[in-house]
Amino acid sequence: MPGAFTLLKTDPATAARRGRLATRHGAVETPEFMPVGTQGTVKAMTPAQLREIGAQIILGNTYHLNLRPGAEVIRGLGGLHAFMGWDGPILTDSGGFQVFSLAKLRQVGDDGITFQSHLDGATVFLGPRQVIEIQRSLDSDIAMVLDECPPWPCERDACLRAVERSRRWAGACLAAARATGFLADGRQVFAIVQGSVFDDVRREAAAALAALDFPGYAIGGVSVGEPEPEMLRQVAVTAPCLPAAKPRYTMGLGTPPQLLKMIALGVDLFDCVMPTRVARNGQVFTPDGPLNLRNEKFRADPRPVVAGLDNYTCRHFSRAYLRHLSLANEMLVGTLLTIHNLHFYLDLMRQARAHIEAGDYAAWHRGWIERYESASAD
Amino acid sequence: MPGAFTLLKTDPATAARRGRLATRHGAVETPEFMPVGTQGTVKAMTPAQLREIGAQIILGNTYHLNLRPGAEVIRGLGGLHAFMGWDGPILTDSGGFQVFSLAKLRQVGDDGITFQSHLDGATVFLGPRQVIEIQRSLDSDIAMVLDECPPWPCERDACLRAVERSRRWAGACLAAARATGFLADGRQVFAIVQGSVFDDVRREAAAALAALDFPGYAIGGVSVGEPEPEMLRQVAVTAPCLPAAKPRYTMGLGTPPQLLKMIALGVDLFDCVMPTRVARNGQVFTPDGPLNLRNEKFRADPRPVVAGLDNYTCRHFSRAYLRHLSLANEMLVGTLLTIHNLHFYLDLMRQARAHIEAGDYAAWHRGWIERYESASAD
Repeated sequence: MPGAFTLLKTDPATAARRGRLATRHGAVETPEFMPVGTQGTVKAMTPAQLREIGAQIILGNTYHLNLRPGAEVIRGLGGLHAFMGWDGPILTDSGGFQVFSLAKLRQVGDDGITFQSHLDGATVFLGPRQVIEIQRSLDSDIAMVLDECPPWPCERDACLRAVERSRRWAGACLAAARATGFLADGRQVFAIVQGSVFDDVRREAAAALAALDFPGYAIGGVSVGEPEPEMLRQVAVTAPCLPAAKPRYTMGLGTPPQLLKMIALGVDLFDCVMPTRVARNGQVFTPDGPLNLRNEKFRADPRPVVAGLDNYTCRHFSRAYLRHLSLANEMLVGTLLTIHNLHFYLDLMRQARAHIEAGDYAAWHRGWIERYESASAD
Repeated sequence: MPGAFTLLKTDPATAARRGRLATRHGAVETPEFMPVGTQGTVKAMTPAQLREIGAQIILGNTYHLNLRPGAEVIRGLGGLHAFMGWDGPILTDSGGFQVFSLAKLRQVGDDGITFQSHLDGATVFLGPRQVIEIQRSLDSDIAMVLDECPPWPCERDACLRAVERSRRWAGACLAAARATGFLADGRQVFAIVQGSVFDDVRREAAAALAALDFPGYAIGGVSVGEPEPEMLRQVAVTAPCLPAAKPRYTMGLGTPPQLLKMIALGVDLFDCVMPTRVARNGQVFTPDGPLNLRNEKFRADPRPVVAGLDNYTCRHFSRAYLRHLSLANEMLVGTLLTIHNLHFYLDLMRQARAHIEAGDYAAWHRGWIERYESASAD
């Protein structure tokens, strides 16, 4: 689907980009963060609450949804949008990453991956054709190709084999998406660049996938255990090798400073479970760094998590109340802290977009990171 | 506070009443059900969601809030309304019931109860003055007196001692509420009638408390293990002995049919954890009886829980989706099923009020119960 992405502006001092990604369920202003809805729900949030914090697009997990409740059940109920009550864009991963991290008795062949479900031990096969079919059953707006994500650390030879296999699977996914009409009715398929820590492997993988003219490109194999400088280096190596006219997405990342740094490297889309996951443990984000609300010092603190931040949690509740809910293990704390953390991420992306438009992204993002990392939030 | 309750209409064929209870935080149309907010939150619900389903008044638990985070912390943060972000009326129990059901090493004396916190073993004393002071710190609109709830079954002598002690504590609570200005600024205190299964003891207890001219009266010591017919008999014996011009409240009850039967006996207010508690196990209420959504037969069921019921859950989600969330142990299911169950209860109370106004409550409530109990919901 050429033309789905419009590059509106490129920052003069960094590689940051302001873009717009058209989908069947509306446009996504980029850079943007995608809340993760693994099992057909962004944990603890209603779709109405997601809309209220300004979420533009969410992520669903093919591996999980295909095992439970099953792609056919979701298709029979009108697709993932109708199933979960979200009428905005949905990107789904291919399931490959979870096969490598969750499934048991995995066998990787040239045609695909055979594995046992982590839920009930059932034998499942995922090949390029299957992952496109499943994502069609889910009615994804943006599907990801099946890939093999090398672990970290990884020998060069093993990495080369995974990259070559991933390249062939990517081509097969694109062919399946064309043959089945997946692309024709406005859906998109994004390729995934692997290559571990080997710069030349990443560059060649990016070039080979770029030649296939995908609607978008992800940088995969990052945030798999490597140190942060190494992760940023991989993104810095890979991003310039991707077509400038297509959206770029780093999968599974990251902290607020990491997002701003990757935007400066030319990345447009992000997803990460961190803001939702840490919320359930009482951790919240602020411009002065993270806080853990379970700390005794918040026992009678009447302040909101972030003064002036316009979300339901900050408008109505004190740190003392949120701490109380967390210590009492009340379900509501998961909802209220997830609202805050996701809104904090989305608001950060809104600020990033505004500063790219204003032409001062470089200075702004350096200042933001400096405050976040040096200040002591209380 | 005489005049807070207005009796608008009495049903010609039953003892059902249509009333209005004025409070410092707005009026409550009765009969009404009060969602339970034990620890400063109606479990899994935001205050906005409570408003959306039409909740008029909620209940808070003195025992729990006094132990954690502490009544003084809540007072310092502006009271329970500000603390939990709920600006409607709040009724708080006295803590007595939980002292008898949760606390350890309990010692009951004529002045009050000494016990150990179930959270940290700290020694706490609750007497009539303390429970009024705590409920003032919480800024309750309606406080309950301290009482001693006899267990079931109970010997007559033990019951008489508990009733006599409860009567003296009720008088002491009223005196403390007058002396401290609790009543003067528009708050109310409700008495609690005990008496176990002894009709004459209940009648005498009701008469003695009625003579003290409380703003409202609760029927306590029900739903403590006795069979349902016995419970309804206790309510039937007690209600007519209470002043007609004051609101009547049965504590901790009950199922939808029980509520309708108690309304027919002249009860105006109810609270119960059941609709919120069972929601977290996948159980939902329908006019054709309860359903457990974890059942296999709902695997691909596209229907809402109750077709046409105007709440967020029934407007947007299928039984199949809710079943999926429940099997996946997703937090959202607690929220969505609680929304439905509480709305179902509140909607039932709205219907009851309308039928009392229309003068056909007797036939309507019999028909409603017959359908609920005889139909096989699917």
